[in-house]
Amino acid sequence: MPEEKRMELEPIGIVRTEAFGKEVRARGHSSEVVLSKDLTGALDGLDDFSHIFVIFWMHKIYEPKRRTIKVNPRGRRDLPLVGIFATRTPYHPNPIGLTLVELLGVEDNVLTVLGLDAFDGTPVLDIKPFDHWDMVDNVQVPDWWKRLEKERSERGQTSLSGPAGRSKKQGTVEN
Amino acid sequence: MPEEKRMELEPIGIVRTEAFGKEVRARGHSSEVVLSKDLTGALDGLDDFSHIFVIFWMHKIYEPKRRTIKVNPRGRRDLPLVGIFATRTPYHPNPIGLTLVELLGVEDNVLTVLGLDAFDGTPVLDIKPFDHWDMVDNVQVPDWWKRLEKERSERGQTSLSGPAGRSKKQGTVEN
Repeated sequence: MPEEKRMELEPIGIVRTEAFGKEVRARGHSSEVVLSKDLTGALDGLDDFSHIFVIFWMHKIYEPKRRTIKVNPRGRRDLPLVGIFATRTPYHPNPIGLTLVELLGVEDNVLTVLGLDAFDGTPVLDIKPFDHWDMVDNVQVPDWWKRLEKERSERGQTSLSGPAGRSKKQGTVEN
Repeated sequence: MPEEKRMELEPIGIVRTEAFGKEVRARGHSSEVVLSKDLTGALDGLDDFSHIFVIFWMHKIYEPKRRTIKVNPRGRRDLPLVGIFATRTPYHPNPIGLTLVELLGVEDNVLTVLGLDAFDGTPVLDIKPFDHWDMVDNVQVPDWWKRLEKERSERGQTSLSGPAGRSKKQGTVEN
């Protein structure tokens, strides 16, 4: 690694949600992203987007876990042990969370979003609108991934593109 | 903002590319992501994914630019002035780059990717596989965004889902 200046982050805001424990991961709840008031103008025009990435600092990760090299996906021993970078485990060297959420609304410095798997009190680092470059087809994933996907579908859970999504336009924002 | 422990990042690797200047943004080139050798095992199984997110530290951003609040998208005065969070401008408070790329190959601690808009020497912070949660339909974007998209399409530029993509399976990795 080359010599670098220190890479230090500053929070731009914080997550507020009533979800806790497993609810947070299930992603069926809405959350607020409360930004610093001085960043209110930086949100102008964001509400023309239906989906945004929220980048956050997973502040609850026990630091030695950041040295993890391999995991069983979702902690399941019946799935193959793979490298942490081949999964979305939170145990990566830098505890940066990345979640695509549906944007339900923006009011002043507060965003309301659906599907953010971040705990109450999580520092927020960045907001990025969903871009055409983020859309791909012909996506290929491992067999263990397909198996998880199949199980999820059998449980009737839907993704953001399913019927739970796009509630904004029907005016059914829950708050 | 609550009192937080310092949020400091460590590089997990570095970008190597021969592209420079505008070529980097055009995203038609391949790059290498060279990880620390001690993270080689953490890549096991990654090559079963066709697409990954690369999260990086935009080390060339002039620091005062991180205080920007509004921009014209792509610096174009004919497009409306909007908040920085409504665009993918690199001038955000935290210079975190997020790019979805096609994974062309993995060899030991080196990933070869297509479409990474990061300069040679950029510190890499994280790698995440593309997840079903990252796929949405019914995406809504602003009018200025559609206009840029139309212009891009008229210039014949394709996105990752276009014919330039998925070269891995045809064995045409350029290196």
